[in-house]
Amino acid sequence: MPFYEPTTKDMEFVLHDLLKVSELDIPGFNEMDRDFTGAVLEEAGKIARDVLAPLNPVGDHEGCKLENGSVRVPTGFEDAVNVLRDGGWTGFDCDPEYGGQGMPYTLSVAVGEMHSSANMALMMYPGLTHGAYAAIHAHGSDEQKTKYLPNLVSFKWGGTMNLTEPQCGTDLGLIRTKAEPQDDGTYKISGQKIWISAGEHGMAENIIHLVLAKIPGGPEGVKGISLFIVPKFHVNEDGTLGDRNEVSCGGLESKMGIHGNATCVMNYDGATGYLIGEKHKGLRAMFTMMNEARLGVGMQGLAQASVAYQNALAFAKDRIQGRAVTGVKEPEKAADSIIHFPDVRRMLMDQKSFVEGGRAFMLWAATMIDRSRRNDDADAEGLVSLLIPVVKGFLTDKGLDATISAQQVYGGSGFTTEWGAEQFVRDCRIALIYEGTNGIQALDLVGRKLATDNGKHVMAFFDLVKDFIKENGEDERMAEFITPLKAASKDLQAGGMYFMQNMGNPDDALSGAHDFMHLFGHVCLGLMWARMAKASFEALDAGAADTEFYESKLVTGRYYMTRKLPETAFLLKKVQAGGENVMGLSVANF
Amino acid sequence: MPFYEPTTKDMEFVLHDLLKVSELDIPGFNEMDRDFTGAVLEEAGKIARDVLAPLNPVGDHEGCKLENGSVRVPTGFEDAVNVLRDGGWTGFDCDPEYGGQGMPYTLSVAVGEMHSSANMALMMYPGLTHGAYAAIHAHGSDEQKTKYLPNLVSFKWGGTMNLTEPQCGTDLGLIRTKAEPQDDGTYKISGQKIWISAGEHGMAENIIHLVLAKIPGGPEGVKGISLFIVPKFHVNEDGTLGDRNEVSCGGLESKMGIHGNATCVMNYDGATGYLIGEKHKGLRAMFTMMNEARLGVGMQGLAQASVAYQNALAFAKDRIQGRAVTGVKEPEKAADSIIHFPDVRRMLMDQKSFVEGGRAFMLWAATMIDRSRRNDDADAEGLVSLLIPVVKGFLTDKGLDATISAQQVYGGSGFTTEWGAEQFVRDCRIALIYEGTNGIQALDLVGRKLATDNGKHVMAFFDLVKDFIKENGEDERMAEFITPLKAASKDLQAGGMYFMQNMGNPDDALSGAHDFMHLFGHVCLGLMWARMAKASFEALDAGAADTEFYESKLVTGRYYMTRKLPETAFLLKKVQAGGENVMGLSVANF
Repeated sequence: MPFYEPTTKDMEFVLHDLLKVSELDIPGFNEMDRDFTGAVLEEAGKIARDVLAPLNPVGDHEGCKLENGSVRVPTGFEDAVNVLRDGGWTGFDCDPEYGGQGMPYTLSVAVGEMHSSANMALMMYPGLTHGAYAAIHAHGSDEQKTKYLPNLVSFKWGGTMNLTEPQCGTDLGLIRTKAEPQDDGTYKISGQKIWISAGEHGMAENIIHLVLAKIPGGPEGVKGISLFIVPKFHVNEDGTLGDRNEVSCGGLESKMGIHGNATCVMNYDGATGYLIGEKHKGLRAMFTMMNEARLGVGMQGLAQASVAYQNALAFAKDRIQGRAVTGVKEPEKAADSIIHFPDVRRMLMDQKSFVEGGRAFMLWAATMIDRSRRNDDADAEGLVSLLIPVVKGFLTDKGLDATISAQQVYGGSGFTTEWGAEQFVRDCRIALIYEGTNGIQALDLVGRKLATDNGKHVMAFFDLVKDFIKENGEDERMAEFITPLKAASKDLQAGGMYFMQNMGNPDDALSGAHDFMHLFGHVCLGLMWARMAKASFEALDAGAADTEFYESKLVTGRYYMTRKLPETAFLLKKVQAGGENVMGLSVANF
Repeated sequence: MPFYEPTTKDMEFVLHDLLKVSELDIPGFNEMDRDFTGAVLEEAGKIARDVLAPLNPVGDHEGCKLENGSVRVPTGFEDAVNVLRDGGWTGFDCDPEYGGQGMPYTLSVAVGEMHSSANMALMMYPGLTHGAYAAIHAHGSDEQKTKYLPNLVSFKWGGTMNLTEPQCGTDLGLIRTKAEPQDDGTYKISGQKIWISAGEHGMAENIIHLVLAKIPGGPEGVKGISLFIVPKFHVNEDGTLGDRNEVSCGGLESKMGIHGNATCVMNYDGATGYLIGEKHKGLRAMFTMMNEARLGVGMQGLAQASVAYQNALAFAKDRIQGRAVTGVKEPEKAADSIIHFPDVRRMLMDQKSFVEGGRAFMLWAATMIDRSRRNDDADAEGLVSLLIPVVKGFLTDKGLDATISAQQVYGGSGFTTEWGAEQFVRDCRIALIYEGTNGIQALDLVGRKLATDNGKHVMAFFDLVKDFIKENGEDERMAEFITPLKAASKDLQAGGMYFMQNMGNPDDALSGAHDFMHLFGHVCLGLMWARMAKASFEALDAGAADTEFYESKLVTGRYYMTRKLPETAFLLKKVQAGGENVMGLSVANF
């Protein structure tokens, strides 16, 4: 039976030793001292461990059932959602004006990682609701905010995001869902949306669907898309619920993982909708919160890797099989634990060094989102927008690798349902696909973000790395972190340079986009590990009590620097190979 | 709905243009001309496409059910098995003395790839039976052969291999199943075996279980293991069936994939067993056919990659979304097919170059098995024994990567059951685990095979590569294949050298074993691609009609050489990093 053990200690290290959040000049951050974040994470962790994690295999096994138009969620899900709601977790980082707790986004990401590790499918119900909250909060009228936000914050009402249609996912310009203007200022929404996560369920009194649709006569393509609120039940003036709106769940998708979440076909048959923001500016409105949404998916990839690692580690310590090559380690047993075998260690260290490095990267990026939100800091916004495709693409690609590697530690048991390792793989798999496939992330990075503001933000990133190298280049203890970071960063710059010099043939740039995204991800994790090494040395110098924790950080960091980071040279080679061989085969000859 | 299209043309290229099988000096091979192999593969392909493939999602969806001690297999499986039986496919490469067709193993591997692509779970029923056949054929008494082999060859009876127990898989020394000698020369077998593929079903009249067990009082550990025949139904002197033996299926494993195959808990409660071969030499007897068994699993990895690629390609040609960056490609459509996008191409070329290179590698290795069997050639046996862990480990690791990459091509559709891409991933996953995990393959390669016969076989491999490089180094057209092959081969030699110089600390060698296995795999596929390039140039020079086929081979080969093979430098770096960082963390500090 799989378990989840809260990663409070490591998160505290990242928040305080590494990021020093309480010292950051961001409104609200000075309250984030160790005591406070520790107390929050401890509570969040208890829910993850005791409430959410035990339901994870239940949700996978039972799945969701569509019965007479209603979706029955797995046993225990509603009770668990009530625990989240009652504890104020659903509105953790929401606006206090609408009942939220107003906590920093950064802390909400740490909490979110725990909860997502414990039960990814379940957390998508409040997760999508949060997305709807955010869009209305950013673009809704005051009336709309007053009407919808408090109930979304408390999860009295759920929320969904409706983008995809059978003929379009990535290319939303092909949307066919229509919004016919009515005399009373509302719209009649008609069309079919697919893959709508949490699209229908009975855990909330109402569901507020945010729907992309085209008003007839508007501009062609993506420039003619508007965003609408379509409530499942009409909401009366006094806030009470009226009749059902003409929206219904037409079916549930059978899928590889996240079985506990209802992936719905949603049919809009002249449903009443309310425009959010301006006409034809729907895509912009939907994507305002894109950085948070994509960071959230990167977080899911990392979260599955984290829980998969924990369980694989426990298995490796417990399972005895054969004897260590360097001599018997556990003579009192019939065989040694498999954790003594180098290849098992390799797999565990791969996972551990990724999870800890990725967590630091994710939380660092989250602080930039807080800075851009709370300080209105355009540079932070620019830098984090550059990094977001890397957070999403790299953390989910490598997160999936980590879950597969964790599964491998179990041998045959990893393939059985009983041990749970295979569920982490299946659940994680979707994170590489939704919220923009990882190929789309790479395209966003190379085709758009690199050149934003004339390359200002990528230069800022390089400066960050350079400055860190410069500041610590004299420190001998840091050499084994600085030297590989320097080499990797040089590879990244060379990759960027290649694109600059080959703008003329976009196929050349885009053929290497995915590799470049990975190159970038490695440099980010390399930077994080170098910084964590520095923080660990400082803590040890300052006489920190838990010397083993900091020394373990250094060992894990060295592993990343010697065995993961050097992949950058190979990735650069692929970037520089251009598009010739990628595009060389004619379609007919495939 | 997924499909399977036979890969006859590519297999014919490998068998004839590349391996020139009909010219090889191996008994039986001179009959393998293009007409003959073409006819065989066409027939095999029809069964794969029309009979087996349509049942693949059925098997996944229905799974197997244990009802009153019997296993009900998915709808249609029995009819399909009858088609294989009636066509003589179950005894394709079996001894004609016992009713087999006596075909070369090499050709059986090509047929096996097709059938396994079409329906991996189904093919495991005759697959395991073939394993039981092979062990009895190699080690059984004449009486046992006469009694069991003809019915195994015809699949009138099924067969299984019983190794794993709850407390041991890799370390068979821990086996607890007991075999108590009886006065009549038989044994009473008692114990529990788990993960027994095809352990129980009603598609055959009888099932012949091959069971590893310990005779009390024998040597400790693996030296005290014997191998027994335990029939489900007793077999009378006249060949008719008697009563049930005391063996029963105690449960079915719920698992990630291959749902159509019954993975059984088998309980032996004083079942009558018959010793095969000598007492206490059971492990040797079970593992005699290890090369074939492991090649067969590598084949499964490749086969899933092949079918996953085919389906992803069809999707990429059909799905329209957005416009190509270099300008509109299909103006008559609302958008261009996604195959025009570089990142989709990258994924398809990754898959294609792996599948075609891997297929050549696998069939080349198969010819060596034929050579060792039919010519009693110890050098061929030595070389293929060296390569087998690479065939198994590399083809399944990269095969899984390819299925995941194929799934990614679909975007959201890839996550749904409907399109079938996710089944290929789940089915393929087991191939990295069973028949010795890939970590065990790496250990076998580095810890045993490299040093076999004082390194004679690895030197023979290096000579093969060197000779090819030498012979073709002057050919300018070949430079883009020879140069990267040379570099990769140098990396491989450096990796081998590292192990030789660091024998003193086995942790150093074994920490890099998995990376070395991949390094070796890349060099093998690099060699295959270089040879296939040469064969393609030769065919073009000779005025071959299908110029596009051969030119496509060259494009695909160049892709592998520029974008896959250079990973060897990174892998070497990891090998040379040794064990310090892998083993540096104490168990307590994980």
